[in-house]
Amino acid sequence: MPTIEQARAWYPDNDPVHGFDHVLRVTHMAERLAEAEGADLEIVRAAALLHDAEGSATEGGDEGRVDHHEASAAFARGVLLEEGWPEERIAAVQHCIRAHRFRDDTEPQSLEAKILFDADKLDVIGAIGIARTIAFDVVIGQPIYAQPSRRFLQQGEKEPGEVHSSVHEFIFKLSKIKDLLHTPQARAIAAKRHSFMVEFFERLESEMRGEK
Amino acid sequence: MPTIEQARAWYPDNDPVHGFDHVLRVTHMAERLAEAEGADLEIVRAAALLHDAEGSATEGGDEGRVDHHEASAAFARGVLLEEGWPEERIAAVQHCIRAHRFRDDTEPQSLEAKILFDADKLDVIGAIGIARTIAFDVVIGQPIYAQPSRRFLQQGEKEPGEVHSSVHEFIFKLSKIKDLLHTPQARAIAAKRHSFMVEFFERLESEMRGEK
Repeated sequence: MPTIEQARAWYPDNDPVHGFDHVLRVTHMAERLAEAEGADLEIVRAAALLHDAEGSATEGGDEGRVDHHEASAAFARGVLLEEGWPEERIAAVQHCIRAHRFRDDTEPQSLEAKILFDADKLDVIGAIGIARTIAFDVVIGQPIYAQPSRRFLQQGEKEPGEVHSSVHEFIFKLSKIKDLLHTPQARAIAAKRHSFMVEFFERLESEMRGEK
Repeated sequence: MPTIEQARAWYPDNDPVHGFDHVLRVTHMAERLAEAEGADLEIVRAAALLHDAEGSATEGGDEGRVDHHEASAAFARGVLLEEGWPEERIAAVQHCIRAHRFRDDTEPQSLEAKILFDADKLDVIGAIGIARTIAFDVVIGQPIYAQPSRRFLQQGEKEPGEVHSSVHEFIFKLSKIKDLLHTPQARAIAAKRHSFMVEFFERLESEMRGEK
């Protein structure tokens, strides 16, 4: 079983979005969900510790991270083979890792994969999600806030030259997370994190206009 | 009178904390407060547009910015002399700029200086303040969140080696802003921004512990 200390070495300690603190939070949340749902704790824990281990650096932006789930699944296989895990259980961990992405064809099939997906997604909403989204903007040089165009608000498509900011990310992705989660406990946590996030972005917009 | 377009050239467009969007918000807020208080709008507007014009880059951290109020006051003198402003009114603008810092010996004496101070400080609290504080952490390589020590919580002093994070900044500085403001309207706005910010940091802490 990979340990926290082993896992620490797989992640940068200076990435404010996909650093080790994110992995630790996802691991703890995944364990909590796994206990509530009666899932296989060893699979969940290994998958959580390994889920972003390869190709997850925030610097490259979303495009740089496009294959990080496949790269991390391959990396996980190497680690778990070396630990003597049986093929079947390695495949179960790999499925969790492959299916954890927001935009992807691989849907989580197993309970363990659903739990990793949910735990990872809970970390992009609420106060943590707000903080990580702003950090992402700063790391890749996007503005924190830019008024979305009418087209983006109505059709979800940007005007030519329209920049992406935390508000765009909220509208495009973060606001939809709560409806994508699988387990009841994750959905309950998400409901509260979602409400707070909505309040934050409403407030940010009003303050930016000098209204509040 | 310096124009918005002139002012744009004095500021970097890629600084997420002290960039031109901050200056624009402060200018609009300062004008709003000036109208409510019957202050000299020309002085307030010039001071707001010029208040961070020199030495304000976020990259250097707080130490790099230590003299930015003096440097910006000197820069303002050059700009306003060239525009043919009388010495007395230039001095009034310079006083506003010199007195706008949080940690400084120069207290705002004039109504116009109090207004610039208030408008600038309103931009470090509320949803905007949260976003700028997190951006500051990322720009200078601090963690977004680190659990403050008991010593820091009780005495405001860090343990040896204790890192500074947004929560430390909230406790040390942001939570005190509302009581430092001068004008009634700024205090009313600050009260609401303060409450929201308190809620954010309480939530961030709980979520970091996996409790919410």
